[in-house]
Amino acid sequence: MGSRGVARPLLVQKFGGTSVGDVERMRNVAARIASAVAEGRQVAVTVSAMGHTTDRLIALAGELSDRPLRRELDVLLTTGEQQSIALLTIALDALGVRARSFTGAQAGFLTDSRHGSARILQVNAEAVLRAFEDADVAVVAGFQGEDRDGNLTTLGRGGSDTTAVALAAAVGADECEIYTDTDGIYTTDPHLIAQACKLERIDYDEMLELAALGAQVLHPRSVWYARRYGVRIHVRSAFVPRPGTLVTSLKGRQEARMITEKPVTGVAIDLNHARIDVHGVPDEPGIAARLFAELGKAGISPDMIVQGVRGASDSRQQMAFTVPQDVVQDALDAIRPTLDALHASASADVDIAKLSIVGIAVGSTPGVAGRMFEAVASVGANIGMITTSEVRISVVIPSGAAHEALRAVHAAFGLDRPEAAA
Amino acid sequence: MGSRGVARPLLVQKFGGTSVGDVERMRNVAARIASAVAEGRQVAVTVSAMGHTTDRLIALAGELSDRPLRRELDVLLTTGEQQSIALLTIALDALGVRARSFTGAQAGFLTDSRHGSARILQVNAEAVLRAFEDADVAVVAGFQGEDRDGNLTTLGRGGSDTTAVALAAAVGADECEIYTDTDGIYTTDPHLIAQACKLERIDYDEMLELAALGAQVLHPRSVWYARRYGVRIHVRSAFVPRPGTLVTSLKGRQEARMITEKPVTGVAIDLNHARIDVHGVPDEPGIAARLFAELGKAGISPDMIVQGVRGASDSRQQMAFTVPQDVVQDALDAIRPTLDALHASASADVDIAKLSIVGIAVGSTPGVAGRMFEAVASVGANIGMITTSEVRISVVIPSGAAHEALRAVHAAFGLDRPEAAA
Repeated sequence: MGSRGVARPLLVQKFGGTSVGDVERMRNVAARIASAVAEGRQVAVTVSAMGHTTDRLIALAGELSDRPLRRELDVLLTTGEQQSIALLTIALDALGVRARSFTGAQAGFLTDSRHGSARILQVNAEAVLRAFEDADVAVVAGFQGEDRDGNLTTLGRGGSDTTAVALAAAVGADECEIYTDTDGIYTTDPHLIAQACKLERIDYDEMLELAALGAQVLHPRSVWYARRYGVRIHVRSAFVPRPGTLVTSLKGRQEARMITEKPVTGVAIDLNHARIDVHGVPDEPGIAARLFAELGKAGISPDMIVQGVRGASDSRQQMAFTVPQDVVQDALDAIRPTLDALHASASADVDIAKLSIVGIAVGSTPGVAGRMFEAVASVGANIGMITTSEVRISVVIPSGAAHEALRAVHAAFGLDRPEAAA
Repeated sequence: MGSRGVARPLLVQKFGGTSVGDVERMRNVAARIASAVAEGRQVAVTVSAMGHTTDRLIALAGELSDRPLRRELDVLLTTGEQQSIALLTIALDALGVRARSFTGAQAGFLTDSRHGSARILQVNAEAVLRAFEDADVAVVAGFQGEDRDGNLTTLGRGGSDTTAVALAAAVGADECEIYTDTDGIYTTDPHLIAQACKLERIDYDEMLELAALGAQVLHPRSVWYARRYGVRIHVRSAFVPRPGTLVTSLKGRQEARMITEKPVTGVAIDLNHARIDVHGVPDEPGIAARLFAELGKAGISPDMIVQGVRGASDSRQQMAFTVPQDVVQDALDAIRPTLDALHASASADVDIAKLSIVGIAVGSTPGVAGRMFEAVASVGANIGMITTSEVRISVVIPSGAAHEALRAVHAAFGLDRPEAAA
């Protein structure tokens, strides 16, 4: 995706909203970039909106309308990052660093027109690369772009990570540093389990699953993008200068074998999903397809799906799936007409937790699933649904048992820190 | 500058920062626009940044640098209006009005590259006009545009007025309503002189002079633009629904004759200028040109200029001019090398006031100048400099006498309100 005629190594760095939360932190970020420049690097920086700017703007729009126009919300929200790029560039200039800012549109981020959750179609990094002819730093607004008609778009929550990775791919950088308020990726959420260990490396596929399962550190789309374009991500602390976690390809490498001696890389818990049960659907071909088509039209992607005949004497099926809690009502509304026509019904349960183990080969390593179910059972939790893939196994359990089950599974796969276990 | 294929009359309205200072006021502005739509109009609205947003952003940049990069200041400041257009469009939508927002760049405002005080080169209103195919209101960010290289620019203080007038010209509207926190143009500043009267109409040229002289209501460039493209400006209150003042062409009309029976339309006082005296410059051709060329290079336009030989026995000249107080030091720095080379010197006096009378024909109406000087003398003020043009006469007096002299001149030309004079 593009090549550069410049000799100096180009580094891509991303700083989140907390890292630039106030003028003092903005200055610290500028100083960190300045030191990379002093070491002879050119730096393309992606930056988020300062602190709670985005939430504040959303609240302002909410005061004016219950359902703010999505196009206009994007016009509003893109100002947050635009302020950040200007201020960071001014801070860099004050340190004597030659820098230049770029909005998403100016940096060549072309997206589709899905306001609020747009996807990057193309990054034309020419203007950014040209800036390095007389600047050492290009400061690019994260989270945003424009569509073919010149409408401003945003990539949705966590979109700045995707901006950074896509920028790295477009300018031909082989590493993208993501600075955040944690110092890397852990075997599980260290706020929940004190025994969690920081990982030195993690494979793209493992990270994709963990990200999708609610590890807040990286946005799944950024990991997908990184894997697709072979960009190594270095997740590290914005406040502590030590190495973090490398997200890279481990499959087929020497390292991979070492790591798979421990089949499970991480354990994740997700309390933000709900389970929807569909009752009394006729056991005929095409019914499930119709229901999921309705959900798709409403923009809802079910996550775990199970389907099974109730009993031999009953020709009506039972089916269940999980969706994010905030779209439960939308999901029920979407399938109601079809269910009504079939004399079927649906019910929702929000008191569930999705517990998942992730590892390069968990799906095909004998005994892994059994060991997980055993650990869950040891804390008295009933398993309601199970899904598996090559890199993860997920179970749905009552939310009340979530924390205890997480701790038991983390320990069962030998992920507790040695000193904590001692 | 463009034509429209739409049948409904198109109105241009501009709302300043005070009018959209908070969510409640934003809602009021939306309601006012909605009522124009209900009357069958299509409306192109220009809006400024909310309340003190611009000042707050400038302060933020000031915390990071003593001299923030001008390009980046523009990137920062344009976010203020961008937030306003999004929020106003959301507020309009909440009232059921079909509206669409445009940044300056999206609305086709092409400017030169003078960051912080860019001039509009061209307005390509195609996108705005196209929006009226399925919307009733286009909400355009004031004060901003982009240059030929896609850099964001701002038009400088008061630039939103210019945006509104240029937009009116580009979409072919013949009137531009400027909503502000006063209810029109007065014979002088009503905060200073209680006897000031509101004018029903004022000529472009008179308004140009008054605007340039510190009447804060309209930016001079907007008036210049209105005169050039024949756009009538209606300055009116954002809070009180009664007619304000029309800025239009009065010359050669019946109205003009009636108005010139009172030769003076308005009186203005300006305390923001300083006088620079240049001493001991040789009386040779080209010296003044050199000094003013140096000032021009520094971006400084002197306002009043007087020059005269000191005495017959002295071959060295005296010269004086006025500049805005905030560039006094820059002006002195700019001419110092030339003065040093000529063994000349300069001194500055900030304790001055510029008192001006404005009227379509003051410069050519016998007795007007004399009556003004007499009124100034009646309060014991010494006149330091005098300049005249067809539409104004200005004098420099000590700032201590400014208020009293203003009152005397206002009364001398019969501008006091009848009831106040009684």
